[in-house]
Amino acid sequence: MHTAFQDTYADKYSHCYGCGKLNPHGHQLKSHWDGDGTVARYTPRPEHSGGVPGHVYGGLIASLLDCHGTASAAAFAHRAEARSPGGGESPVRYVTASLRVDFRRPTPMGTELLITGRLRNLEGRKVWVDLALSAQGEICAEGEMLALRLPG
Amino acid sequence: MHTAFQDTYADKYSHCYGCGKLNPHGHQLKSHWDGDGTVARYTPRPEHSGGVPGHVYGGLIASLLDCHGTASAAAFAHRAEARSPGGGESPVRYVTASLRVDFRRPTPMGTELLITGRLRNLEGRKVWVDLALSAQGEICAEGEMLALRLPG
Repeated sequence: MHTAFQDTYADKYSHCYGCGKLNPHGHQLKSHWDGDGTVARYTPRPEHSGGVPGHVYGGLIASLLDCHGTASAAAFAHRAEARSPGGGESPVRYVTASLRVDFRRPTPMGTELLITGRLRNLEGRKVWVDLALSAQGEICAEGEMLALRLPG
Repeated sequence: MHTAFQDTYADKYSHCYGCGKLNPHGHQLKSHWDGDGTVARYTPRPEHSGGVPGHVYGGLIASLLDCHGTASAAAFAHRAEARSPGGGESPVRYVTASLRVDFRRPTPMGTELLITGRLRNLEGRKVWVDLALSAQGEICAEGEMLALRLPG
């Protein structure tokens, strides 16, 4: 397994509850390339129940899509710049401007979740990412994110 | 202070990590009426940092809007039914079909957050709720939810 996107973040950006490697209380989500797209895997803890027993908490689903989305946005931007003339090598960070999550079916507890990202569009400091979360081969939630590049 | 909406949920629906009164590990968010709208208050814990130091984790913001949104949807439905002829008194529960969150500015750590809900529309088993999250009097995130009534 290659280094996760989040493990390349500067230490000052590594305290996120969802994906920061320096946050011992958080989820420490790890995102990777998977072909042209991106992927992360996460198994919810027993306390991550939703209101309905046996189903994952919607807030966790939104959180996983959010962290995977911004990590994917940064990865897509890096890839685009490496391919274009004059592309720089300095690491970039993205924050979420807008996130939409459509909950398609209940997400079962007790199984690993697969979170995927695909680049829809990249324009200036904006990246649009299509996201999905599946369990046992079925899509449980879909999302779309607009991420904005942090200056500097 | 009156009883929070979440404290009226049946025990079997009270295990949500975001707002279940029976989940000792979770946020135990409490939503109340505030005039025609709804309100909840929550102070993030130190570990709820986002990637950028001093700013709240976006996943927590989405989670708070999600739990407050479904609680508000149920409250709006109860209110509507109490006013209409033949309205029932049985408690109802809503789940999120879709949630959009627009992050307007960084949400500061170390201060109480105010989450508000307003009814946009109620039609059959669907309720649309407009949401906002503010800190120190400034709106940091806005959201909109489509919530669906659970059968039974």
